[in-house]
Amino acid sequence: MEPIVVAGTQLHSTEEKQRYREQVRKLRKGKKGLVIVNTGNGKGKTSAALGVMTRAWGRDLKVRVIQFLKHENAKFGESRAAAKMEIEFGGTGDGFTWTSKDLDTTKAKALHGWELAKTAISSNQYQIVILDEFTYVLAFGWLDVNEVVAWLAANKPELLHVIITGRDAPAALIEHADLVTEMREIKHPFTTQGIRAQIGIDF
Amino acid sequence: MEPIVVAGTQLHSTEEKQRYREQVRKLRKGKKGLVIVNTGNGKGKTSAALGVMTRAWGRDLKVRVIQFLKHENAKFGESRAAAKMEIEFGGTGDGFTWTSKDLDTTKAKALHGWELAKTAISSNQYQIVILDEFTYVLAFGWLDVNEVVAWLAANKPELLHVIITGRDAPAALIEHADLVTEMREIKHPFTTQGIRAQIGIDF
Repeated sequence: MEPIVVAGTQLHSTEEKQRYREQVRKLRKGKKGLVIVNTGNGKGKTSAALGVMTRAWGRDLKVRVIQFLKHENAKFGESRAAAKMEIEFGGTGDGFTWTSKDLDTTKAKALHGWELAKTAISSNQYQIVILDEFTYVLAFGWLDVNEVVAWLAANKPELLHVIITGRDAPAALIEHADLVTEMREIKHPFTTQGIRAQIGIDF
Repeated sequence: MEPIVVAGTQLHSTEEKQRYREQVRKLRKGKKGLVIVNTGNGKGKTSAALGVMTRAWGRDLKVRVIQFLKHENAKFGESRAAAKMEIEFGGTGDGFTWTSKDLDTTKAKALHGWELAKTAISSNQYQIVILDEFTYVLAFGWLDVNEVVAWLAANKPELLHVIITGRDAPAALIEHADLVTEMREIKHPFTTQGIRAQIGIDF
């Protein structure tokens, strides 16, 4: 019998091979929800997730957005838009850590965000769940990336798309993801021209 | 007097230096519309532009989107969303060139798109104008990139943001742009797993 090798691992049992073939069949039919990661030091990681949110909303799909490190009550452009679109959009952080005066609270809120995320993901009520800035929670070591990946593997509904954004996506997350894009900064107005963040563009 | 060097060019006249200092002052105050380019072979170029569109709409800014190479009447997620958001969203192409049976028509429609773009940009009616897939029109040589850049330099209202998306952004466009991001494909489900485009995610 012909061996099947997936990501460097040879599948031995007939069961493994059947599972793999079934997986590929579903993927080819477009019947699998993807784990999507937008990472890198450039712009557009959150914006691209918001763009997918907008497309999905255009098709009346149900989207849930959890922002891990944004101010809970901040009226950013995206939260204003989500309110108009009646999309559930929740920040759980108390601001970026580099401005935080109380790191323990930030961490506690981020961990609470993951509980919200697990509830949303396993609820089977959404077609897309966006975990915005979630990579930082992993990169800071507040959550174990292997546990997160194992949880996703065991609990993500088959058709649900999960989009994770943020710099420094850990290797184990990239390994698990189906679609990974690096947003690379080629030219940035702050570094080249001293331009600050722009209202409506950046926030 | 201290020399000022911008992008490798030393500014000589007092006028040049004054213009440059005025420019920097406005940039620092966030009072300049940016020319933004999302390029690269990865996902998220159009999605990130749509995300900015959504943010801006959340703040009641006025956005105009011109899609250069999409089917005019196609009911994609983004056009459905734009209709719900009452954003002017026009495709001008008759489909991607690699499926086109009549290249001349495609080219004519793309050139018509540039006329629409010029009207929108110079109208001073918008805060953001998105030229989606516009790089292809330049890369195919249908429009001269230097003429386009010169037109933008002369006619773009100071506060207007223009976002241009697509692969293979020409060097002259990158040179002119304020903010350039390359979306790099790290992992793609079509190449790694044979997954086709997903409704609500990709279109």
